[in-house]
Amino acid sequence: MTIDAAIAELSTVLGDRLSRSKSDLDLHGQNESYFDTTPPDAVAYPTSTEEVQEIVKICARHGCPIVPWGVGTSLEGHALAIRGGVSVDFSRMNRVLSINAEDMDCVVQPGITRRALAEELRATGLFFSVDPGADATLGGMAATRASGTTAVRYGTMRDNVLGLEVVLADGRVIRTGTRARKSSAGYDLTALFLGSEGTLGLITELTLKLHGQPEAISSAVCAFPDIHAAVSAVIATIQMGIPMARIEFVDAATAQAFNAYAGSSLPEMPHLMIEFHGSDTSVAEDATRFGEVAEEFGAEGFQWSTKTEERNKLWRMRHDAYYAIMASQPGKRAMATDICVPISRLADAVVETQEDIAQSGLYGPLLGHVGDGNFHATIVTDPTRPEELKTAKALARRMNERALRMGGTVTGEHGVGMGKIDYMSEEHGEAWSVMGDLKRTLDPANILNPGKVVRLN
Amino acid sequence: MTIDAAIAELSTVLGDRLSRSKSDLDLHGQNESYFDTTPPDAVAYPTSTEEVQEIVKICARHGCPIVPWGVGTSLEGHALAIRGGVSVDFSRMNRVLSINAEDMDCVVQPGITRRALAEELRATGLFFSVDPGADATLGGMAATRASGTTAVRYGTMRDNVLGLEVVLADGRVIRTGTRARKSSAGYDLTALFLGSEGTLGLITELTLKLHGQPEAISSAVCAFPDIHAAVSAVIATIQMGIPMARIEFVDAATAQAFNAYAGSSLPEMPHLMIEFHGSDTSVAEDATRFGEVAEEFGAEGFQWSTKTEERNKLWRMRHDAYYAIMASQPGKRAMATDICVPISRLADAVVETQEDIAQSGLYGPLLGHVGDGNFHATIVTDPTRPEELKTAKALARRMNERALRMGGTVTGEHGVGMGKIDYMSEEHGEAWSVMGDLKRTLDPANILNPGKVVRLN
Repeated sequence: MTIDAAIAELSTVLGDRLSRSKSDLDLHGQNESYFDTTPPDAVAYPTSTEEVQEIVKICARHGCPIVPWGVGTSLEGHALAIRGGVSVDFSRMNRVLSINAEDMDCVVQPGITRRALAEELRATGLFFSVDPGADATLGGMAATRASGTTAVRYGTMRDNVLGLEVVLADGRVIRTGTRARKSSAGYDLTALFLGSEGTLGLITELTLKLHGQPEAISSAVCAFPDIHAAVSAVIATIQMGIPMARIEFVDAATAQAFNAYAGSSLPEMPHLMIEFHGSDTSVAEDATRFGEVAEEFGAEGFQWSTKTEERNKLWRMRHDAYYAIMASQPGKRAMATDICVPISRLADAVVETQEDIAQSGLYGPLLGHVGDGNFHATIVTDPTRPEELKTAKALARRMNERALRMGGTVTGEHGVGMGKIDYMSEEHGEAWSVMGDLKRTLDPANILNPGKVVRLN
Repeated sequence: MTIDAAIAELSTVLGDRLSRSKSDLDLHGQNESYFDTTPPDAVAYPTSTEEVQEIVKICARHGCPIVPWGVGTSLEGHALAIRGGVSVDFSRMNRVLSINAEDMDCVVQPGITRRALAEELRATGLFFSVDPGADATLGGMAATRASGTTAVRYGTMRDNVLGLEVVLADGRVIRTGTRARKSSAGYDLTALFLGSEGTLGLITELTLKLHGQPEAISSAVCAFPDIHAAVSAVIATIQMGIPMARIEFVDAATAQAFNAYAGSSLPEMPHLMIEFHGSDTSVAEDATRFGEVAEEFGAEGFQWSTKTEERNKLWRMRHDAYYAIMASQPGKRAMATDICVPISRLADAVVETQEDIAQSGLYGPLLGHVGDGNFHATIVTDPTRPEELKTAKALARRMNERALRMGGTVTGEHGVGMGKIDYMSEEHGEAWSVMGDLKRTLDPANILNPGKVVRLN
């Protein structure tokens, strides 16, 4: 078998850093979503770009699929080796290579997680802004073009990666971008690899934009009488130009899950969580203006805090939302939808989705990065009742169609993987076939994460 | 001849909107830089996407080169038909198709200029932020991934285009992106076409991000004792996190050109021009903090203004810098360099460049978007003295090599065209050949703006 031949050759190069143990294969076959466990044939643990290059060359010779692995927190089955092959685990390439404080950038290996990076940056007065809920790796975040709570102010991975080092399917190593803040020097290859989910190349190094820690930060959480009021307050705030650093929506069901998981005592109502960054006077002013808008829409229970500890608790709670929801449903699996719509359509999109879920009889709390028009339903199903997964998929389909009808996208930040691939033609039309053309050009033998993002003949 | 056959067929489709008049050909053979006039074989004036599609299909059948034309303000010979063929002039596709004020976006045709768009948006309370010096078309700005004075706050074209409609070399029409603020749905084709300079497809429609007019704006200009002090003040301001909307540097020679052209009375010293956007209190606070930093570096003559008329005058002067410099040198031509470096290297880059120009004996004022690390030398030469162009090219080469040595790029915002193509291999290494692979995939017959950005065999 071609895969076996590749693995045999990889073994001689990597020694015990090529694992075929059952526990390792099982671990790299898992996912945090509803997909079946799908173990790869082997797991490779490279320690350098040169080793990644060697792995790719060997696999290319044998036509063996290569699937990059960060920490496995993706939600659309991105990292599952659905055609077998080798899972390339980047956990031993997890170093910060340089921090250029004066230029507000840093260079990291793909296996570092966002919390580990935050720790490394703590003393510098700088921070990396992109914060998906999970403690994902930076390589994985780049590969899925991830975002999080701060995208409304600081942007997504698209905006915060200056350059990449990438190993291509033929083993060539390229560098994209520079350490300059902008460039018009030819095709934007950095952007092409961001969001390509390991299908065009393996990211082995990232140059990241950093931001200065704001002088002052002010956070708050407040309850609204209903979803429509909460989302309308967001729209009004955006249109007034109040510069939010974060504005997050959670519905009553999510608030309930927080109370159980994080020991909070939020009223079981829809909430907004907001944060402002700036100077002492500017955050105070922003908070006052936002408070006025929110009150118009019936907000209550406002509590502003500028204390680090309280803020950390608030955002930790938000980041753990997925785990809080799952903890309330032992033994269940979840489908996390991820639509993003033009902001004027957000209230309609959220309300219609909630009504649809209510009618289905499934448990499906809503939450989202509403400042971007992006929200998620975490639709929970019982794996022993397959008809629930069918109902969930139908709900997700209606939600995705709603997003497209409203001029939006089926995935704001989670990516395509296996879970969204059936929507690509609807979202992109003929442009999806152009994506296929690009894939064929850069990976003609289709060895890089095959079956994700695009479908080749 | 294949080009003649294409033109004959185009004539029957476009009628008098296919021009071969000498004046038209000459007009579309000109450039604002140092390249020789290079007239195309014909000029087409499409009025719709369908006509662009028809033009491309006819040219594809006959292997006739197609070169898109906005208003011809590019600085690297992008729009010159160096292999003959048809110049596609977008001046009759210059409409705003929709303004979605609630979503803060709009949809435009590629032929609209940035000032015409500003006029259309005036009553909405919204503005489009990207502002190259010239009154370029939005299509041209997208094609070169342009930026301008506000990139430090609002980003470049890369950050302000949500989606595109593109006619490909085989006549297919695709749409990239959506009206959602972010998406992780597959390869970022919008980013791929932004900056592709008409070599991968013709942009026929753009969806643009708009920003709310700030409640308060405060601008100032101030003089510094020397270049190093001015640039060091910029670096300190960035590192302190003072949120600038604009921060522009001009040297003493540029200040002198302004005085002559715009009737200003600036001291003949290096200057910074700055602007803050926000609320009344925040811009006042930002101005105070910046003033303190600037004073430390010896700034003087500070004059803050929040009056629209005074601000407009200031920025019009800045935008007209290139014309001011050229007006002071009748009969001369210019080479506008465009390097961008990591911010910590900016002072060195500017000082070394100025010394190099001084030694050359040529006139070459410096100015730039220093908040991004981007600056230009406008190196002026006498067309009757060809040795001056040689000296200018050598200066530009040293400047570009300096940028690359410092981890930067040879073009921050002007693009590659013909003028920077010789540096692409040095800047990108193997990644440039990947760009060639992408070009071959999307335009195998090399009919779209051939000879620009990449070189095919």
